Amino acid sequence: MWAHVGQPFAPARYDVLIVGAGRMGAALARFLRAARPDLSLLLAEEGGLPNEEGATILAPGVWHADVPPERREEAERTRVLLGDALTPCGLLDLQGQAGPATRPVSEVLGPDLLGWIDAGVLPHVRLDGRAGVYSAGQLTLGHAQTAIREGADLMLNVRAELHGHELNGHALDRPGSGGAARVALHRLSVTNTHQVVVDHTVNVTVARVVIAAGAPGPALAEAGLGIVTPHRAAYRQTPRLEVPSTSGTPVLRAEGLTLRPQSGGFTVVPPVPHPDPWGYVPTGGRLVGVPVGLRRETLDAVMRAMPGLSVLAGEGLVVGRSIADIPGAWLAVPAGDWPTWERLDDTHWLLLGGERADLTGLAVAEQLAQALAAT
Amino acid sequence: MWAHVGQPFAPARYDVLIVGAGRMGAALARFLRAARPDLSLLLAEEGGLPNEEGATILAPGVWHADVPPERREEAERTRVLLGDALTPCGLLDLQGQAGPATRPVSEVLGPDLLGWIDAGVLPHVRLDGRAGVYSAGQLTLGHAQTAIREGADLMLNVRAELHGHELNGHALDRPGSGGAARVALHRLSVTNTHQVVVDHTVNVTVARVVIAAGAPGPALAEAGLGIVTPHRAAYRQTPRLEVPSTSGTPVLRAEGLTLRPQSGGFTVVPPVPHPDPWGYVPTGGRLVGVPVGLRRETLDAVMRAMPGLSVLAGEGLVVGRSIADIPGAWLAVPAGDWPTWERLDDTHWLLLGGERADLTGLAVAEQLAQALAAT
Repeated sequence: MWAHVGQPFAPARYDVLIVGAGRMGAALARFLRAARPDLSLLLAEEGGLPNEEGATILAPGVWHADVPPERREEAERTRVLLGDALTPCGLLDLQGQAGPATRPVSEVLGPDLLGWIDAGVLPHVRLDGRAGVYSAGQLTLGHAQTAIREGADLMLNVRAELHGHELNGHALDRPGSGGAARVALHRLSVTNTHQVVVDHTVNVTVARVVIAAGAPGPALAEAGLGIVTPHRAAYRQTPRLEVPSTSGTPVLRAEGLTLRPQSGGFTVVPPVPHPDPWGYVPTGGRLVGVPVGLRRETLDAVMRAMPGLSVLAGEGLVVGRSIADIPGAWLAVPAGDWPTWERLDDTHWLLLGGERADLTGLAVAEQLAQALAAT
Repeated sequence: MWAHVGQPFAPARYDVLIVGAGRMGAALARFLRAARPDLSLLLAEEGGLPNEEGATILAPGVWHADVPPERREEAERTRVLLGDALTPCGLLDLQGQAGPATRPVSEVLGPDLLGWIDAGVLPHVRLDGRAGVYSAGQLTLGHAQTAIREGADLMLNVRAELHGHELNGHALDRPGSGGAARVALHRLSVTNTHQVVVDHTVNVTVARVVIAAGAPGPALAEAGLGIVTPHRAAYRQTPRLEVPSTSGTPVLRAEGLTLRPQSGGFTVVPPVPHPDPWGYVPTGGRLVGVPVGLRRETLDAVMRAMPGLSVLAGEGLVVGRSIADIPGAWLAVPAGDWPTWERLDDTHWLLLGGERADLTGLAVAEQLAQALAAT
């Protein structure tokens, strides 16, 4: 069942509600449906599927094996779960210093790639032949469709309002033996002056709620349940680099940046060095005095990489004229920096992907599905 | 000479111009004046002296010996330079784990202090008997007055506009054998509708310019000289804790926070975990849904410390109702996190204090004075 505004929506009780049908929520829905087909499941999403401009659709979708030992198992499991979705194009990790398994760039890179770098600054390269790329948006759509085919309900354009077991010191109604949560689902509509308004509200009773809303997830838990978590958020921009790539071009990594071949060019993926403060409004920076769409921190990352990745200093980098010109999204920054889940109270769980959801997100969603299946 | 708007200002040529009469600039002026009384020196400050709400007047002014080995020499030199300004009240470093030189809190803390902490969470304490407090504002005023008494000129309410040696590709006039910088000093006035306007502009020719403007320093270098630096900035709030202290009360440090006895109560000094993004406007957060003046990141730091420092959970912490209620200032975040100076080009230097200016700032200002004296 796909429920849209205007369609009737009958059920008022579910075993599991997943708030957010992005990459983490949709994967969880699929895994949970496979593990426990007996549990009724509702997937609620505020936007479309996957959200047209959220973190999922803009995710680079780069898997590689360069993870710390304690994450290796999750990364390898994620690669298995990615299956055919992964195109194994390899990844070239360019380095200033020789290290284990590095080779001289002149032996590995073709003349085109050699022309994009300064081999004096980055003379060494390590090839990760198992690395590859995938579309996080396609994968998420597939997961959601599978979950629905196997009996999950999906509600789009709906905003969830959570309630804890207590409100202002008064215990709330707790139907069901194991405790249950009450969730208000506000179904959104758009007026002809482009304002998002609540069309009507459906109250559902749910035994287990998973918040998989990405960057706003922790704020949702805090506003609704009063549970403060250490997780944060950051706004990541992924500008285009208009130099030619083909489907066989490897991913390039250097100086903290990842260059992901995409749509005949590249997407430049800067690192997320630290969370942005609460209340930050993304703002374009200035390049030699001229306003551009890249925020200052993105410019810093790109400029630091320019001596080695000389291709960034050319005409190909799309810097834009204002923040709206550059693809960007708010990402969760989970405490510890890796995808994670945690139990918030008797009935609520939090699932977070973030910057490294590409590497271990599916395995973490599967772990939570197993934990929920066992409850 | 103290020059104010409305007074005549004759000299148009100086050997040294220091932009900013905060704690770093004023200390530099004093040290340089002592080392090279033959050099004519102008100290230019945008606000008053010290600036009524800048980083200097809000600096905690806590010196302690807990610095990494490579900073020990600078910290000890700073203590010598502080001299009588330092009140050696000691510092109690409360810890969860026993370490070298820790003792049980029950042996060291009096009953009043013991009532403020949870000795189960923070059972150990290390006493730094050489630590002490000082007023960074008083010290800065003293440094500036000494420099002026010994012949430096001071210009208040003046904004400096720097120029590189090239502008749009054209070499600028470079009078003087060793090169010289041209600086436009815009003298500010306030209209009766409280707008700050440029009253008039004085152009000066200077052999050496030191940018000691605090958090805006790197932006000044970039806008005027086109020199991009890796330094950043952060907005630090220092809320009041209204529980009684006396002049003999030691500084308390626990869970990353410093509690500095001040004016019969305490100032709570949270850490600066990372820089704020460019364009960030400080915004109050929410505490159990209610808007407060503490920004979210300050709330996080305070709440993390509450289990150990139970006094923070009481009525004494002033959380305010909006950002304007809580004392706060933009701090430089120098690359590497410690006070530092660097030469930007032939005629320009950058001097930065930041969060740890309390510990090593004076020694770093003295180092730069020696370097300039030798040129």
